[in-house]
Amino acid sequence: MTEQKTPYDLPDVSGLSLGILGGTGDQGKGLARRFGMAGHRVTIGSRSAERAEQAAAELGPSVCGADNAVAAGEPDVVIVAVPWDGHRATLESLRAELAGKIVVDCVNPLGFDKQGAYPLTVEEGSAAQQAAAVLPDSRVVGAFHHVSAKLLLNPEIDAMELDVLVLGDDREATDIVRALAERIGGMRGIYAGRLRNAHQVEAFTANLISINRRYKAHAGLRVTDV
Amino acid sequence: MTEQKTPYDLPDVSGLSLGILGGTGDQGKGLARRFGMAGHRVTIGSRSAERAEQAAAELGPSVCGADNAVAAGEPDVVIVAVPWDGHRATLESLRAELAGKIVVDCVNPLGFDKQGAYPLTVEEGSAAQQAAAVLPDSRVVGAFHHVSAKLLLNPEIDAMELDVLVLGDDREATDIVRALAERIGGMRGIYAGRLRNAHQVEAFTANLISINRRYKAHAGLRVTDV
Repeated sequence: MTEQKTPYDLPDVSGLSLGILGGTGDQGKGLARRFGMAGHRVTIGSRSAERAEQAAAELGPSVCGADNAVAAGEPDVVIVAVPWDGHRATLESLRAELAGKIVVDCVNPLGFDKQGAYPLTVEEGSAAQQAAAVLPDSRVVGAFHHVSAKLLLNPEIDAMELDVLVLGDDREATDIVRALAERIGGMRGIYAGRLRNAHQVEAFTANLISINRRYKAHAGLRVTDV
Repeated sequence: MTEQKTPYDLPDVSGLSLGILGGTGDQGKGLARRFGMAGHRVTIGSRSAERAEQAAAELGPSVCGADNAVAAGEPDVVIVAVPWDGHRATLESLRAELAGKIVVDCVNPLGFDKQGAYPLTVEEGSAAQQAAAVLPDSRVVGAFHHVSAKLLLNPEIDAMELDVLVLGDDREATDIVRALAERIGGMRGIYAGRLRNAHQVEAFTANLISINRRYKAHAGLRVTDV
């Protein structure tokens, strides 16, 4: 990879294969579908290989299914889209497979009550920081928190009109993830700070849910002046 | 005020006068300048009336200065733009003056170290929730967290290209503050959730600071699909 000249120059990531843990959930399926459309080989993982294969069958010829260990171990970059409940345990069980890799955490620790969504307290500060703590040999990046699964899965939506906020302490890794975000039509990947500032990005998903309720929308964010 | 038909219908707030506590800081001065340009009578407050008057003299004929008690007591709506350090004490000292009013908190509790900005832990959850706890008889709304003071004060910038995220539990109060945001050219006021979801909006200012450093920008947010 050549040296970056400006914050906007990004590496060529077109050849990278992707694994998606929790790939049978809506967020995981939506990302798998879009990355498959962009030409990436995608392996979605689940605790059951059979369920993963069934989900993959709906998502196009570039997407296959496997158990989580294969989806974590074989691809170049692995996206974590599991429910918050199983976040720590899933990552702990895949520590060896994920060693040395870029791991992209897009999990939002949220609770829900009759007033809507609210952020949960995470001992490590955020899901991304928990991933970094559990996976000391991986390169953890936070991204794709605000992407509407409904829009990702909607065949009538060609372009996703939002910016993906990318967080991490490893510059090369955040640039690769930013470049991956830009493989999906309409998206930009914007560096948005270190992992210690991931909590508020994850938690902001609760605000987007409030916005969606009030405006009957699928809201996302654009960063202005960049 | 007539009943709201859609989430986009907003009340007429053109006649409201504004007080700005901490009005001699850059954020306060910038908001005072823009609201003055929009035709509002603005009183900026400071512990010293003289300092407030000096600051007001630079900000146009609609802006005057006074001590904090006058800036809190006389105007229709009061914006809190004090440093986080003095937030609680200032509000406690003005509880009587602020009773019954809409109080707009735009304070971001942040710390800074060599890695940049990070959110501070606030006992009540957020500055806005602290304001609500200290001012039980006021109608507290969170807003204007992400507005660049530099752009507000720059005479060459006509329009502020960003959305103001407005948080609160009082629908009429958040609508009034949304309408006030829209008095400033380029801004939209977007309802973004209850006060319990204010923390991450305040904390996100740390991310904007990271973005500004990386991209040499004055970043703001736009909400898509609304």
